[in-house]
Amino acid sequence: MTEGIWHGGDLARARTLFPDAPEPWIDLSTGINPIPYPLPALPLSLWQRLPGADDEAVLLAAARKAYRAPPGAGIVAAPGTQILIDLLPRILPEIARAGPVAVLGPTYAEHALAWRKAGAEVTEPTTLAEAAKAASIVVVNPNNPDGRSLPVADLAALAARCAKRGGMLILDEAFADFTPQLSLLPALPPATIVLRSFGKTYGLAGVRLGFAIGEEAPMTALRTAMGPWAVAGPALAIGTQALADADWLADAGAARATDAARLDALLAPLGRVVGGTALFRLLETPDSALLFAHFGRHGIYVRRFQNQASWLRLGLPGDAAAWSRLEAALSSFIPLGGSASVLHASHAGTASGSPANLT
Amino acid sequence: MTEGIWHGGDLARARTLFPDAPEPWIDLSTGINPIPYPLPALPLSLWQRLPGADDEAVLLAAARKAYRAPPGAGIVAAPGTQILIDLLPRILPEIARAGPVAVLGPTYAEHALAWRKAGAEVTEPTTLAEAAKAASIVVVNPNNPDGRSLPVADLAALAARCAKRGGMLILDEAFADFTPQLSLLPALPPATIVLRSFGKTYGLAGVRLGFAIGEEAPMTALRTAMGPWAVAGPALAIGTQALADADWLADAGAARATDAARLDALLAPLGRVVGGTALFRLLETPDSALLFAHFGRHGIYVRRFQNQASWLRLGLPGDAAAWSRLEAALSSFIPLGGSASVLHASHAGTASGSPANLT
Repeated sequence: MTEGIWHGGDLARARTLFPDAPEPWIDLSTGINPIPYPLPALPLSLWQRLPGADDEAVLLAAARKAYRAPPGAGIVAAPGTQILIDLLPRILPEIARAGPVAVLGPTYAEHALAWRKAGAEVTEPTTLAEAAKAASIVVVNPNNPDGRSLPVADLAALAARCAKRGGMLILDEAFADFTPQLSLLPALPPATIVLRSFGKTYGLAGVRLGFAIGEEAPMTALRTAMGPWAVAGPALAIGTQALADADWLADAGAARATDAARLDALLAPLGRVVGGTALFRLLETPDSALLFAHFGRHGIYVRRFQNQASWLRLGLPGDAAAWSRLEAALSSFIPLGGSASVLHASHAGTASGSPANLT
Repeated sequence: MTEGIWHGGDLARARTLFPDAPEPWIDLSTGINPIPYPLPALPLSLWQRLPGADDEAVLLAAARKAYRAPPGAGIVAAPGTQILIDLLPRILPEIARAGPVAVLGPTYAEHALAWRKAGAEVTEPTTLAEAAKAASIVVVNPNNPDGRSLPVADLAALAARCAKRGGMLILDEAFADFTPQLSLLPALPPATIVLRSFGKTYGLAGVRLGFAIGEEAPMTALRTAMGPWAVAGPALAIGTQALADADWLADAGAARATDAARLDALLAPLGRVVGGTALFRLLETPDSALLFAHFGRHGIYVRRFQNQASWLRLGLPGDAAAWSRLEAALSSFIPLGGSASVLHASHAGTASGSPANLT
């Protein structure tokens, strides 16, 4: 796995940091829905056979509908969105040559890293006005970790500007499933690629399934770079069934929004709830280091950030027991106004110099 | 999926070709073990969570041992070997620049295709002497579909020659698991990459799991091209357990060798059994087109080849019923010495111009 960048979900690291914490750990360090889509029965043949072209075709049809891909758009499925993020700069070398790639930050760190690895000049502006100067722009929308979302009209204008410069707009909509009104789709201007992720919304990140939607040429290039059968047979079957289940999506979205509001209410006394999505909330507090350690000692793993010392991101508890342990931990927390930042400083010293690092 | 190249395992195509065939189809068109490794229990958490770095580490340790990777060798896991075949030419652009890439043919067609797509000059010689003139050489060993295997000493000499030319030896050992004496490993000369496949031997091609073993620099480049979490959580767990199970491997190898001998005996009256591995056998017969159609009408799908008209490759039947149907079909076959080649000619006309096309 990538060294240097912090990601959520690595409980082995949590156990190393807090060896005396009670088990089981409550993992709030990711933005993965804690209540997964119910796994369908998986016939043995899905494991035995190479995934068939017809199996992939039905998955892509379900994805087109779920994500509202416009007719004529290209679509490609991959074993997770991450590999698409890593392959895009390699299959589109002309994008890096067209000029700087601006990753609107702070955001998920793997975008900037992937473009840098491919030799692109990468900037990480924090305002749209600054980002708009680049030839190509990467926007996570809604954004991880702060939930910032850009109006669809602004995104379309960005795309037009990128196209004129020979660049591209790459829109990571990993967290847009519960808020389709925030998605650029069904609009898909030229020189735009939209990334969609299966694992977070459906609570099945281990399945490894993600999509890119865009013009046919870059989609064909992505497909070609991975070759046939990149997505496992069970992933095709699970994805096909889940993406067609609009009722589950609506119910889960409503339930998670309620959970998110409940979490906000718990966090409000500790600092400022900056925002987030229905799957995670971002807290800004001078006590972040102390709170991270307090949670850790209680067996609750939350997400901290290499370069935003005052931020903590919390995913949603998945059951009553987890909510109780979170509430109990919070009730015993004594804020100190950020004076006890020893733990944070010591771990920050071991981190890489990478700017914003969010999973 | 890739257009133009014929692959085994696509029963949808079989049903199109032979709409009146009895169901269920017996798929002998692949080299996948028909008796899979028993799937372990897969806890829901494997599906829910992002695969952890520790989960990948234990898989890689099991793979190192199973494949006898030498200490210090780099190793990378991927969602199937195919994606490694497609990525290698892209992450090693200096290889294509060093001179021609010879793919020792006829063999699995995706190797030559991947290098051509990356702009390499590709040759497909059929003799080692001819292949040895290139800067880089791809050898499938033992070979698919004819089972040809090169002595380890020859492979080491090839590697040394490639290294001297700034090229590389890429050794696809997808079918070496049951015959470890045919593997170059534990030897691993400089400028050599060995590919190993999980799905065929263990009968779990839908899992998508493959490995590359070589020097650290290209392995890091492969890992970087895919990013973290390319292999699904369930695949990590299944692979870890299966690769550590030397008893199963030994038993399965013995059983499949017996099956292969039984198949050879059935095929011998029809032509020349060229060879193969314990998972498939290659038949050369002037009646290949007629036999392909005869099998098809009996619901038995075998592998034919775009540019080797007289070849048919048969995988192993997986149970007594499949053996019976194969034997019954053979007992009703009337050889004509290749005169009835209408079906073959008509389908060959729709195929691409790609040279050797084998899965």
